[in-house]
Amino acid sequence: MKKPVRPEIPRKTIYRLSVYLRCLQRLKSNAIRTVSSEALSKAAGVKSTQLRKDLTYFGQFGTRGLGYDVEQLAKMISDLLGTNSLQPVILVGVGSLGTALLTYRGFEQEGFEILAAFDIDPKRPRNKKITQPILHIDAMPEFVRERTVRMAILSVPASVAQEVANQLVQAGIAGILNFAPIVLSVPEDVIVNNVNLAIELENLSYFVQN
Amino acid sequence: MKKPVRPEIPRKTIYRLSVYLRCLQRLKSNAIRTVSSEALSKAAGVKSTQLRKDLTYFGQFGTRGLGYDVEQLAKMISDLLGTNSLQPVILVGVGSLGTALLTYRGFEQEGFEILAAFDIDPKRPRNKKITQPILHIDAMPEFVRERTVRMAILSVPASVAQEVANQLVQAGIAGILNFAPIVLSVPEDVIVNNVNLAIELENLSYFVQN
Repeated sequence: MKKPVRPEIPRKTIYRLSVYLRCLQRLKSNAIRTVSSEALSKAAGVKSTQLRKDLTYFGQFGTRGLGYDVEQLAKMISDLLGTNSLQPVILVGVGSLGTALLTYRGFEQEGFEILAAFDIDPKRPRNKKITQPILHIDAMPEFVRERTVRMAILSVPASVAQEVANQLVQAGIAGILNFAPIVLSVPEDVIVNNVNLAIELENLSYFVQN
Repeated sequence: MKKPVRPEIPRKTIYRLSVYLRCLQRLKSNAIRTVSSEALSKAAGVKSTQLRKDLTYFGQFGTRGLGYDVEQLAKMISDLLGTNSLQPVILVGVGSLGTALLTYRGFEQEGFEILAAFDIDPKRPRNKKITQPILHIDAMPEFVRERTVRMAILSVPASVAQEVANQLVQAGIAGILNFAPIVLSVPEDVIVNNVNLAIELENLSYFVQN
């Protein structure tokens, strides 16, 4: 069953939750047990009114004079983001970027496990540091259904990205992290986050020019 | 000399220029010479009023009934983004993510050349697919000045990211593509674009939960 959309909470608020969580984790590792909204918002680079507004969506108001309980707030945010348990993810498109993403260890540290990767040419020799199985794209729908995977990383060429996105949605994927430089059309209940490294650099390039 | 800030053009417009450019390149490779604003905006996933507004900032109005000249508009956007010639970039922090970025070939295809990478431990054994020289971070300021590099990719741990960002700015870097999960404080004339892959996945994770 598809999850109902939660339109009442802005996307940017969810992004900021991730930033607050990282700040709280740092406080925790420094054995700090409570934090004022002023200190936490400063660490997160937002206004304290923004922080309070963001947390109020989730019923968190802090205690006047005491601030927030670091451990409790961190747990609440992890629960919301679903990162308290390891989340299964698949990757589609094992080219140069896909390989880089498969060998990057940062996802697991943050609670995401890439269970398998899919490609039209799974047998092609690749970087030996890849530890995940690489399967044929035709095996993807069954894999997604059997393992109830909800998230996919899409690192295929732009020319086939929409077609592959359609297959992912058809198989039951509800969230796509899209690295292909195109705008994907997906049903309303599917979320796409776009990351385009070259576009980020191009954007900088514009601003650093003389 | 630092470039004056151009506050009149929204950041989002510059991002969209990158998307328009990719659409135009696809049209060009299909030997299409002119495109209407309706067709181009549809390919880019924006409203045609948005496209026209974006291009008007740069004096491009198209020709009624004929639309835009594909080649000419692509060249104008490339010139604006500075991607007609290879742009020099450095990378700082050759850990797991830094290694992935150094072995990713997508930047060069888009007009960016990573000249060198810097790390506090340049001699540590790393992936043999890295072709760029890895130098000690202490060599960074001189390198940046001698090669007049303006852009840096920052892939160091969060705990040292601000300190390294300060060093980059001091050396003359004006644009930072920041992969560290912290909010960097930089002078007004320095641009930071943030990419946090784990946060993008966490954000999806929130939305795909039942």
